[in-house]
Amino acid sequence: MTAAFIGIDWGTTHRRALVIGAQGETIAEHADAEGALACVGRFRASLEALLLRWPEVGPDVPVVMSGMIGSASGWQPVPYLGGDTPVGELARALVRVSDAPVGRRWFIVPGWCLRDDATGEVDVMRGEETQLFGAIHLARARGAKGEGLTDGLYALPGTHSKWARLRAGRVVELRTYMTGELFALLGERGTLASVMHGVRRSVAPDDPAFEAGVRAMCGTSPPALSHALFGARARVVTQSLAPQAAVAYVSGLLLGAEWADARRHPSPDEPVRLIGAPALVALHAACAAQFGRHVEVLAVEAVQRAAWQAFASEGVPS
Amino acid sequence: MTAAFIGIDWGTTHRRALVIGAQGETIAEHADAEGALACVGRFRASLEALLLRWPEVGPDVPVVMSGMIGSASGWQPVPYLGGDTPVGELARALVRVSDAPVGRRWFIVPGWCLRDDATGEVDVMRGEETQLFGAIHLARARGAKGEGLTDGLYALPGTHSKWARLRAGRVVELRTYMTGELFALLGERGTLASVMHGVRRSVAPDDPAFEAGVRAMCGTSPPALSHALFGARARVVTQSLAPQAAVAYVSGLLLGAEWADARRHPSPDEPVRLIGAPALVALHAACAAQFGRHVEVLAVEAVQRAAWQAFASEGVPS
Repeated sequence: MTAAFIGIDWGTTHRRALVIGAQGETIAEHADAEGALACVGRFRASLEALLLRWPEVGPDVPVVMSGMIGSASGWQPVPYLGGDTPVGELARALVRVSDAPVGRRWFIVPGWCLRDDATGEVDVMRGEETQLFGAIHLARARGAKGEGLTDGLYALPGTHSKWARLRAGRVVELRTYMTGELFALLGERGTLASVMHGVRRSVAPDDPAFEAGVRAMCGTSPPALSHALFGARARVVTQSLAPQAAVAYVSGLLLGAEWADARRHPSPDEPVRLIGAPALVALHAACAAQFGRHVEVLAVEAVQRAAWQAFASEGVPS
Repeated sequence: MTAAFIGIDWGTTHRRALVIGAQGETIAEHADAEGALACVGRFRASLEALLLRWPEVGPDVPVVMSGMIGSASGWQPVPYLGGDTPVGELARALVRVSDAPVGRRWFIVPGWCLRDDATGEVDVMRGEETQLFGAIHLARARGAKGEGLTDGLYALPGTHSKWARLRAGRVVELRTYMTGELFALLGERGTLASVMHGVRRSVAPDDPAFEAGVRAMCGTSPPALSHALFGARARVVTQSLAPQAAVAYVSGLLLGAEWADARRHPSPDEPVRLIGAPALVALHAACAAQFGRHVEVLAVEAVQRAAWQAFASEGVPS
């Protein structure tokens, strides 16, 4: 098997690399904690060390990197693309790494910025645009023809959950929610930390406390999140909620806040395309059920692989 | 001047004591960092050390304490009062400290719990009920007659902002917002900490970034807070907001979220009675202006003093 392409999802705290063959097959993969924060000042050395894992891969094989690696705190700040660029044409927009050795074709995928001058709304993503690109190609590979079948509402839950709407292949709406980060912050210190025992314990989608948290955000006039969160403490100190259930309740509130906000999307019959890790996607699917929405699940690994395969088959800039 | 009463607002991290004379005058006061968290296991010794500051105050002078001192993590857990108790009758509900030396009249003010069995909503306060009690007595001292003039909507901003509605002298609505705590958590670590330089810098009510944050929450369909907060970062990385302005912007979002939630109160012409420290009250008054609400400001020190004076004049349980 001959390597044709290396794709690296290079985030803030972790990176995950795939070596793709000429037929789109995965030849090798590797994940480590060499995230952008850990590699400041030594990005090139870190990439070269990674490539040494695969000595059979020639120096002519292109390397494409997505995620925070292209941010101001990453290797090389790459300007955001705007809303008028079709996501499916991402391969044409790759930016060459100026720090690369002569002859090496190393690229960074630009992130996306959506700005509404009328409202002052601004939102950004780095890395998720590559997953959306992968989702489009995955759908095409499965026979979807035309943009209509890949347009729609996508939710990419995580530390920073991204909700994006594609219309005519372009990102026309983008909203980031600090869901995972708030969950971690609240579990670490402060009023809720004392009741959120075991924040690392995984929450089950059918946990009654998780469902109660989602339900609290599910009414026609959901409470402010900063009020709903205190409700976890109020319930524990008044014995309405067992202390060990507070983690699941808070998780339900935070995920429920995303789904409550998604009510602004006018078509309740429209499916939400969920891209994420299985455990988190299962929690969001449970939210969707409570909010009366249906979902289409896309495994994040399949989507990411499809993105690298598409870059490999479309060819990177020369 | 003869001391007639000692009142102590004894919170989680700080306490503030007032010695009140027979005519309601303040004879002495003292504040320190002997909060409930710092005094676990030595509450009695800590109070006795405080009282040694005033050797002229006899052992027969009653001591009344409000705040987290009466919580499960305080000196003595005191059950919450419910919604059917008139706040103005708080003096009758004081709970004796069982750990007090023989003959000492030491009391803890019970906190309040409001529970709506239909919706499952629960909220609690400890300490703010004493401020509401003080506000009622302050208004009566100024000539207000009847409950109608002390009923209404009160906002007590802080680490945990409390919004309470009094009707016929009773607390009929209570909502806590984790405003100050979220502000501190977000400034300490995570994505926003890197842009919230100088979280300890005070925010001015006419700071354009503060106003922009409030405005972002002021529309007819305000965004989810977990989304709006990420907007601070999106604005900084896209140069829509100066990094040094992020603290004021986040402050505006968090305070604005309280006022957006207050829209559920049906009467926009009704004043909001603000009880708090001057700097924080000024920020909330600026929010109120943006939301088209008017406020009546009650200085927290005057309200707290009025509460102790009222306990002193009404007399504590024998």
